[in-house]
Amino acid sequence: MNNQGVQVEIISIGDEILIGQIIDTNSAWMAVELNKAGFEIVQITSVHDNARQIVESLNLALQRADIVIFTGGIGPTKDDITKQTLCNYFNTQLIFNQQTYNDIEQLLKHRKLVINELTLQQAWVPENCTIIRNPVGTAPIMWFERNAKIIVSMPGVPYEMKNAMSNEVIPRLQKNFYTPTLIHKTVQVYGFPESALAIKIAEWENALPENIHLAYLPNYGIVKLRLSGNSDDSPALEFSINQQIAGLTEILGNAIISFEDVSVEILVGNLLKSYGKMIATAESCTGGNIAHKITSVAGSSEYFKGSVVAYSNEVKANILKVSADDLETFGAVSKEVVEQMASGVRKLLKTDVSIATSGIAGPSGGTDEKPVGTVWIAVCSEDELISCEFRFGGLREQIIERTTQAALLMLKDLIAH
Amino acid sequence: MNNQGVQVEIISIGDEILIGQIIDTNSAWMAVELNKAGFEIVQITSVHDNARQIVESLNLALQRADIVIFTGGIGPTKDDITKQTLCNYFNTQLIFNQQTYNDIEQLLKHRKLVINELTLQQAWVPENCTIIRNPVGTAPIMWFERNAKIIVSMPGVPYEMKNAMSNEVIPRLQKNFYTPTLIHKTVQVYGFPESALAIKIAEWENALPENIHLAYLPNYGIVKLRLSGNSDDSPALEFSINQQIAGLTEILGNAIISFEDVSVEILVGNLLKSYGKMIATAESCTGGNIAHKITSVAGSSEYFKGSVVAYSNEVKANILKVSADDLETFGAVSKEVVEQMASGVRKLLKTDVSIATSGIAGPSGGTDEKPVGTVWIAVCSEDELISCEFRFGGLREQIIERTTQAALLMLKDLIAH
Repeated sequence: MNNQGVQVEIISIGDEILIGQIIDTNSAWMAVELNKAGFEIVQITSVHDNARQIVESLNLALQRADIVIFTGGIGPTKDDITKQTLCNYFNTQLIFNQQTYNDIEQLLKHRKLVINELTLQQAWVPENCTIIRNPVGTAPIMWFERNAKIIVSMPGVPYEMKNAMSNEVIPRLQKNFYTPTLIHKTVQVYGFPESALAIKIAEWENALPENIHLAYLPNYGIVKLRLSGNSDDSPALEFSINQQIAGLTEILGNAIISFEDVSVEILVGNLLKSYGKMIATAESCTGGNIAHKITSVAGSSEYFKGSVVAYSNEVKANILKVSADDLETFGAVSKEVVEQMASGVRKLLKTDVSIATSGIAGPSGGTDEKPVGTVWIAVCSEDELISCEFRFGGLREQIIERTTQAALLMLKDLIAH
Repeated sequence: MNNQGVQVEIISIGDEILIGQIIDTNSAWMAVELNKAGFEIVQITSVHDNARQIVESLNLALQRADIVIFTGGIGPTKDDITKQTLCNYFNTQLIFNQQTYNDIEQLLKHRKLVINELTLQQAWVPENCTIIRNPVGTAPIMWFERNAKIIVSMPGVPYEMKNAMSNEVIPRLQKNFYTPTLIHKTVQVYGFPESALAIKIAEWENALPENIHLAYLPNYGIVKLRLSGNSDDSPALEFSINQQIAGLTEILGNAIISFEDVSVEILVGNLLKSYGKMIATAESCTGGNIAHKITSVAGSSEYFKGSVVAYSNEVKANILKVSADDLETFGAVSKEVVEQMASGVRKLLKTDVSIATSGIAGPSGGTDEKPVGTVWIAVCSEDELISCEFRFGGLREQIIERTTQAALLMLKDLIAH
């Protein structure tokens, strides 16, 4: 970590985070967006809806950071105490804000609701703060300044937080601080365990310039190598990072599956688009997850026609026309069945290429011969049909995710080889 | 937050968390499991792979907590510095541990790999710590004791961390500390915005006993009300919480969709099982996400046969037998089409009930008449076919999730009414 930049600390507030009832995805989203805008996140802290803890974490954060961003704890209900706590912290009082009242009235009208006593309280705000309007929720954003530092209190509802961050908070922060250029570039490598990769590129890694930092991020069979730098001379830094990546490419060749930090479903989507190919999936153990991943990408209707989730053998036989004999003889988790699923769905939905999966995601259903984690994947085009058996570790969720990732990568190879 | 219990602080380490490249799901998982075991999480802190920050956060955590659990930063590569940092912190040295070496050798053999210079370093451990074996990864778990406090360093790989927490770390912590009983009960309410719900139950909420804490957790149209207590007299506390829930039930009646903190897909799965009904889905805008959610539940093959993801109109017409005329006249996002999709998939896959979705998830594809977020959902049984139009806010991902949740809740009503 380089301490030259403008430092931000994110404090997420809510008992529900600390009992694990919700996962703090807000902080990760903010970190990405703040980074892009040239800010560095020094720490992320999650605390209870508790005045003492909120104040303590704010005091510590102000020692480390130039900017402190709170998220959560400003809803209309009794358990949310952040506004009152900040009001006490800044020795100020709540005053009625007509603009906020009008905004809330407008928002509720649109939803055919009226202001009640709780939403009314959202229009009372600390006297010393600047109010940033929240067009998509009832809690306004509070912006405080003290000793050249900035403290912002944001809603915890992700949609409201994201809207305000992108449109108001980040642009205002950029006006208040000079931000040096942070550059992150990611190279995705497939087919090496993390330590084997580290040895293969050790010489290259040891020769990296001091201002470029390397991190290894393993993710279901892929290792992302992230090169980061922080410089006031942005073109020179970018040139230097690109030069390092060129060196890496010489060492790793085809093991590099992408020079961008994008998901496999986006990589595959882009390939399908550029080759003008339509895809369908036939899914047993992945239960629709491959289709879900593909369609999570905006514009996927350009290359995705549909899927048959064939969870029962009856669907495999009746809809995908898998031979009932083969299902009986080899079992659903077999080369024979998965290949027929792939070619079956390709014919049925009239696509150029297809993916099929059949496996045992567990926790039950495993045998000595085919333990939990045994998965067959097939990919199919007009003139090729490739299948492969995998033994994945992990629990149900991991097996489904690993199968999804491996299947998309097999399809990538089928199209691009 | 009640400070009587044994306090734990979780510190997750990794630059990738602070640039938002990964979401810290480990901390949430640990929080749930530690809570169940009677521990309280006082704070979750995420810091960089930076020795000064790791030491600073550890010192602060030891002021707040009895137990500090690190996760991450102990991989075999150069960017991981947690082990060396803890070694320096405790004024100790790294020594070779034969048991760890054997474990690594065994693990790699199973994966048909051999120990390399980096994995070898994983067998060198701080002299003053107790080593807990990690049967599923190369980094051993390090357990330190100092001034009656415990510091544990865990791997960041979720599967390795979970395995060690469940089988070793939590049982050992329970032997070291007396833990009072924490009880959380959740009531899920559908159909009220958060503030309207708060007003409806205000009288009840104000009369809650002091030792019972209430939190509101809104989640895509559902509000979870969580009642928590911390007591040495567990049956009395449980009785008291149950009494409060009985009072709440009198006020809210049918708006309560569950007295358990389980996902809608588990609720629906249990209903399907108990009514002995099989389900299929026909998905356009949800793109397989409903099938994915249903099959994320272990044992779902008992009630889920399969799905047709009909992303293109061609698939809707050819496979689900939606009238081409109706597709032309009313458009894919219409009552007519979604109802034919629901009845079509029910007939095709021969199930008792079915769900169908068709909508505009965006960001493009919206019109004045049918803006982004317009979604039709239908549910169908032998003698009923119910459809409903929704206008969801949010981005693509939220629209897909909201549609999935609403569809599963419509099916729940269809089965259980």
